[in-house]
Amino acid sequence: MIALAPGGTIGILGGGQLGRMLSIAAAQLGFDVAIFTDEPDSPASRVSARTMVANYLDHAALADFARRVDVVTTEFENVPAETAQALIDAGARVAPNPHALAVAQDRFDEKSYFASAGIAAPPFRAVASQGELDAALAEIGAPAILKTRRLGYDGRGQIRIDSADDARGAYAKLGAPGILEGFCAFECEVSIIAARGADGAVAFYDLNENEHKGGILSRTTLPARVSADVEAQAQDAARRVLEAFDYVGVLTIEFFVMADGSLIANEMAPRVHNSGHWTVEGALTSQFEQHIRAIAGWPLGPTTRAASIEMVNLIGADAGAWPALAADPDARVHLYGKRNTRAGRKMGHVTKLKY
Amino acid sequence: MIALAPGGTIGILGGGQLGRMLSIAAAQLGFDVAIFTDEPDSPASRVSARTMVANYLDHAALADFARRVDVVTTEFENVPAETAQALIDAGARVAPNPHALAVAQDRFDEKSYFASAGIAAPPFRAVASQGELDAALAEIGAPAILKTRRLGYDGRGQIRIDSADDARGAYAKLGAPGILEGFCAFECEVSIIAARGADGAVAFYDLNENEHKGGILSRTTLPARVSADVEAQAQDAARRVLEAFDYVGVLTIEFFVMADGSLIANEMAPRVHNSGHWTVEGALTSQFEQHIRAIAGWPLGPTTRAASIEMVNLIGADAGAWPALAADPDARVHLYGKRNTRAGRKMGHVTKLKY
Repeated sequence: MIALAPGGTIGILGGGQLGRMLSIAAAQLGFDVAIFTDEPDSPASRVSARTMVANYLDHAALADFARRVDVVTTEFENVPAETAQALIDAGARVAPNPHALAVAQDRFDEKSYFASAGIAAPPFRAVASQGELDAALAEIGAPAILKTRRLGYDGRGQIRIDSADDARGAYAKLGAPGILEGFCAFECEVSIIAARGADGAVAFYDLNENEHKGGILSRTTLPARVSADVEAQAQDAARRVLEAFDYVGVLTIEFFVMADGSLIANEMAPRVHNSGHWTVEGALTSQFEQHIRAIAGWPLGPTTRAASIEMVNLIGADAGAWPALAADPDARVHLYGKRNTRAGRKMGHVTKLKY
Repeated sequence: MIALAPGGTIGILGGGQLGRMLSIAAAQLGFDVAIFTDEPDSPASRVSARTMVANYLDHAALADFARRVDVVTTEFENVPAETAQALIDAGARVAPNPHALAVAQDRFDEKSYFASAGIAAPPFRAVASQGELDAALAEIGAPAILKTRRLGYDGRGQIRIDSADDARGAYAKLGAPGILEGFCAFECEVSIIAARGADGAVAFYDLNENEHKGGILSRTTLPARVSADVEAQAQDAARRVLEAFDYVGVLTIEFFVMADGSLIANEMAPRVHNSGHWTVEGALTSQFEQHIRAIAGWPLGPTTRAASIEMVNLIGADAGAWPALAADPDARVHLYGKRNTRAGRKMGHVTKLKY
């Protein structure tokens, strides 16, 4: 592809904080950004040249959006497949390609893909009834996690099952087609942020070590306390996914690190990721700029990390501590401009760098 | 003052690249930004929540703007004094205060202020006629520079006078009240970016060494090749200006460094400055965030520099080299989203860091 010249317009599906940070990165490279979102006054809209507020299934609006932008990307993986297809039908270039998006949207398809690509994943079974859940539990054994196949994020739509007792009525409680995954007794959790350019070049950021609380990312630190071999396994898996999908843009894979040093893939996100927010200050090219470079057909930038990193999420009421954070000389403060604070809602993050 | 909480609105007068970078910094701290500009589709508007396009002397528009923002600042020093006053009359808090703005707008007032504050400046005389120019030249001697008192920037409105011959007809050519300044045979040029918080705290960035071409900043490097004493002189001058004006925000002073190690103040800019663009990647707190912190009543952030710096401006057609710059792993590329390329127009800049 021919690289998109500065002055071109990047379209982003979604108006959240990832869109906000992508939009800022695009602006720094001289691009205009148009946001497509169903949310009026979204965090991303407020830093973008244009916004179209419409339903993600409004084909007329999507066709109009497609005409006004040079390339379309997404900031959340739950964009309906129909949305991406409508944009393509209207002549838009969509990156990453909708096939990767579709696979990442469905936990069963995702795990199936991992298995087919030789990427170790937890044991899993699709469950579409209580009977299938019981059978899956008998096969996989407890403890296990019952998850919705679709539309889960930040620990939502998940039920932990420690015994056959826990399984009773669990499918009805889930209320949607699910997947039962064997529980991994991991040593720690890591994620890799990887990117592939339109020219096929691949780049990796250093591995993130992640801590979750209540299913939500709480803290990311670098360097991760893992061996070079673990890092190589993560890079190998990411490269396989990027190449299999002819992927263009930033992709994230989350892994469990097991006691024997093996990696188990937990999930992939076809987008920039919370665990990569430290790259704004901590790497020569941020994950946001890297994604924009990739989808604009620019060469990837260097991912060199400049410091030791601690990134802490501000969840819900945490953001109320902004006066103390503003006064902490070690804290680089990021707030997302969300109008309402809710428990479990990502309101901002703080990055601390040690050179 | 009580610190402005995230979600508050920062008003910025002016829609250029400085407003664009201020707006991005404000967004990262969770603020909304409203731009007031007479230019439709300005670079700053395209990254800001709201824009009011109106003449800077439209009092009704200014009063409306004042009601919609929590604090107003400026991204260029040639905002009419009447504009700032109208905003204040309508109840707006304006930072930095309009007195500093007024002094910096007039080269004679500025040089007179330097003299009164004990800050060394070139010899200067106000000239309001050819007769006054001839008399001033006789006193100061050639070479000298004839400059307009007001509305000059990037070398515009300047005539070099090497002899009485050059002076002939020069006042008519200038076409406006002027100031004749003795020419300084400097060793090099430096600038200091300083900030003062609402709490009176003062912070300095490391000194910038600047090269100009045709009166326009071409290149800034750090560390500046000057002694600690030179740096101390610059800090002392900046501190005096900040305190004299009860200044809140970022202020820049440009100096000539003379062979004997003395500093001669060339001009001050009551704002963030091109020579401080490196702080986006190269300092813990960028000059843009620092300015927003100050005017929002937040504590100043640390100014620690993390690397050796080379910042090169992309002037006019220079920005056409973006494909090569995008491919240079050492170049952090910034483009301002200006629609039209003109000779002498600042289109972007590139920062190179060496850790």
